This record gives sequence, structure tokens and C-alpha cells, in this order.
Amino acid sequence: MECSWNEMAPKNVRALIREGKISGPTAGMSAGYAQANLVILKKELAFDFLLFCQRNQKPCPVLDVTEAGSPVPAIIAPQADIRTDLPKYRIYQHGVLAEEVTDITPYWEDDFVGFLIGCSFSFEQALINNGIGVRHIEEGTNVPMYKTNIDCVPAGPFCGQMVVSMRPVPEWQAVRAAQVTSRFPAVHGGPIQIGNPQAIGIHDLNKPDFGDAVTVREGEVPVFWACGVTPQAVAMQVKPEMMITHAPGHMLITDIRDETLGVL
Amino acid sequence: MECSWNEMAPKNVRALIREGKISGPTAGMSAGYAQANLVILKKELAFDFLLFCQRNQKPCPVLDVTEAGSPVPAIIAPQADIRTDLPKYRIYQHGVLAEEVTDITPYWEDDFVGFLIGCSFSFEQALINNGIGVRHIEEGTNVPMYKTNIDCVPAGPFCGQMVVSMRPVPEWQAVRAAQVTSRFPAVHGGPIQIGNPQAIGIHDLNKPDFGDAVTVREGEVPVFWACGVTPQAVAMQVKPEMMITHAPGHMLITDIRDETLGVL
Repeated sequence: MECSWNEMAPKNVRALIREGKISGPTAGMSAGYAQANLVILKKELAFDFLLFCQRNQKPCPVLDVTEAGSPVPAIIAPQADIRTDLPKYRIYQHGVLAEEVTDITPYWEDDFVGFLIGCSFSFEQALINNGIGVRHIEEGTNVPMYKTNIDCVPAGPFCGQMVVSMRPVPEWQAVRAAQVTSRFPAVHGGPIQIGNPQAIGIHDLNKPDFGDAVTVREGEVPVFWACGVTPQAVAMQVKPEMMITHAPGHMLITDIRDETLGVL
Repeated sequence: MECSWNEMAPKNVRALIREGKISGPTAGMSAGYAQANLVILKKELAFDFLLFCQRNQKPCPVLDVTEAGSPVPAIIAPQADIRTDLPKYRIYQHGVLAEEVTDITPYWEDDFVGFLIGCSFSFEQALINNGIGVRHIEEGTNVPMYKTNIDCVPAGPFCGQMVVSMRPVPEWQAVRAAQVTSRFPAVHGGPIQIGNPQAIGIHDLNKPDFGDAVTVREGEVPVFWACGVTPQAVAMQVKPEMMITHAPGHMLITDIRDETLGVL
């Protein structure tokens, strides 16, 4: 990644993405601004999906919902277009990944509703600002994610288990990690488990269901946070006729500063 | 109010309400448990109303949404029945108050969706626990509420200005009042204005739009919080064919402890 993207305003990075000059993962771009997961569904599923998110706010913190047919996330990035401003998308037809594309304009329909969901990048910055290292960033890999045995509260056809992300934290910093992230309920908030993967149905930290395994060092505990992959995973099980999501790591960069998402 | 209602478990108070043995306001009952505002609409309006709440979380923090046709708030009071377990209801037809009743079973339809919305009673307890007096409780009146010039973010047909409640706080405790209530985003969170009513379009504190005026003493500042009357006021403007709400102050007593709504 070019260093300058790190310091560039969100609208300028989005312009480069729109012009096809950026096609990789967005981690680190426009540092200090929140990034968002994207799920697009047809209007007929929108109420049940919004209700699912409302009932499961830790994994599914909604930052914005577009008007049916409008590609504009008016609250978090009013000049953006969700059809072109993310570097990569995944098109799912009847729950099967059909294609990865960099522009979804040809697929757009006038009953599409876009859900923009908070992303852990925001709270990772808060961890780093507090001197708590984030291992997968240090190791240059994707965060390890695991399916759990924690049932989400269902809504309409949407149901399934919570997916969590894991970051190893030195034992003496675990409470601080919980405090720091609790300030940010709009980006998953405090952890849901500290130190006992078995308790939530995770049996081998070296085999994440998504992303990459990371080193857990002597004196560190694994800390688990609800993960924004949950709503995608759950929506996929419903096998909607059409669903479009961001490709993992290829997020919408919003105009909202991370810190403004802090409730305290 | 009988003192014993204060210490009674929520399910026991709800049983007394259901049997018609309690018909007054619920303030103070089952102390320590959250109470909820109620708005019932037909399913056809449910998506836009939920979206309105999602976009305006400070005035409209959703605690639970019932399944269409089900009177059970499964998350916050799974044994309750919203048709009978609030002491008093208001029936609005085409936006006009048609009737006040103590049981809405005869009006119930199989496409009704109930929205249970967080209530300031929870954060008032937190203020009191921090030694910050709540004037309208001290004076035995209803909290003063005012229409503001703050536009809510619209959703479908739902739009309008935010309603706020006001509590006078000694100047030296105003910051503490902001800190204490910020812990509770599910019940309106931190204040939206401290000390300057004009700035939000309020010109006479002695003339609240709802509730009763209270004394503001020398050395006190008026502190304004987003108010759960907002979604009702907004829904009323849409003049839905049918809308049912709780009567002011006659809330659903939930099984959720106030403190569990704290994010920190």
C-alpha cells in the first residue's frame, strides 16, 4: 500500500477506488476514519435483515442503510456510491459465490437495499493507541475468525451462529482491551469471551474458519470479539436469489471519524 | 403507589397489571429493572419505522421488536403479553386519539408489530445513584418535554423534529450527569444539549410541550436528553390507519436490569 493512502481523505481514496486505481484491501487507508462492511439484499428481505441486525447488535452494528434503489450511504458517506466505491465485491446467487467484481453497476436493481455494518478496524486503532498490539497487523495477515456455538437471535429467515474474531492480548492488558473496545458499541464493542475458546465452541485456535491463524505467545490470552462476518454468513444460509457483499478486507471507507463512534 | 410494588419482581407487577389491580403510572415499580415505551404499527409500516429508529438511535433506542402478530417481547420480557401487561394504552386511528384503554386484546390484529423503546427511567436511576437529584421526581410531576428544531433523519414516511426531556442539574454536576448517562446508549445515552435551550429551538422552559414544568434553581443548568416521545410524535404525523402506544408514564416493565444496559 502506498503510504500516502494512509493520510488521504476518505473521498479521495474512494475516487481512486472508483477509477480502478486501487483494487486491494483497504486496511490502513484514510487512517482515523471508520470503514464499513457491506451487505446488499432485495427490499423484500430488508425488514427481516434489519431486524436481525437490531437483535444481534454485537456482531451486526448497523452504521447506515441505503434507500431502496439508491446507492448512496447518506449518513456515513453522502458523496459515495456503493456500486463503485469499494475495491472488490462478491456476487452471491442463491447463496453461491458467482463472481468477484470491482464494480457492481451492471448488477444494480431498483429494489436493492445496502446495509453498511461497523468494522473492527476502528477498534483496532483504539487498541493500538492504548499500546495494545494487534497481532495479525504485526504479522501482516488477515484476522483469524471462528464460528462459535453462540446462537444469534433469529429474525424471519435469518438465523445462525455468531462468528468471532480473535486477537491475542498479554494477560495484564486484557482488562484494558475490554475497556477500550467497550467505548465503541457501533463497531462490535467489548469482547464476548476472554481466554476460554472451548466455552464458545472453538477447539483449535490454529484452524480459523476464516482468515489466518496468528501466533499466541506465552503469557497472552486469546480475546474474542463479535465479528461483522456474522451477518454475511447468516444471510448466505438463507440463499437469497441475489446478495452482494464487499470482498473480505475490501471495505467502504466512510467520512465518519472512528472516535466519533465512541459513546464515552 | 404501594411501596411493595417498588421491590416486586417485574413478572409479579405485570401480573397485577394484567389482573387490573394496577392501572396507574409505572414509575418506581420493580426498581432496578428497565421500563419500555411501546409503539404498535401494522407490518406494512414496520420496516420504515425500524429504519427510522435505527437512524435516530438517541431518541429511538429499540430494545425489542415483536414478531408480526405475536404479543410477546421475547428478548426483554419473554413471559409478557403487550396486549395486557401495560396499565394503560392509547389507540390512535388515522393519527387521532380515539380511546384510552387498559387492555388492547379486542383491537389486536395478526399483522401488528410492537416496538419496545428504551425509557429514561433507567438513566434517572443512574443519576440518583450518583447523587444527582431528578427534579420532577422530587416535585412529584411528569418530566418536562419540549419539541426542538433538531431534524430527525427521515425514513420512508417517518420524519419530524426530535423531542427532548429536561432535567435541571447543578452546574458542578453537569459533566458527571453527561458521563453517567453516556454509559447507557440503549436508554438515550448522554445529553444532546447542556445549558442553552435557545440553541435547540426552545424559548420558554416554563412551557413544555408535554409533561410539566419544573423549578430550575440558581446555579443549575437545564440539561436536555433525547426523549422516547419522539417516535410516537413522529408516527402520529404519518397518521397511520391504526397505531397503539402506551399512555404516557404507563410503561412495560421488562425483565432486563437497568445496569445490564450499560456499555461500560
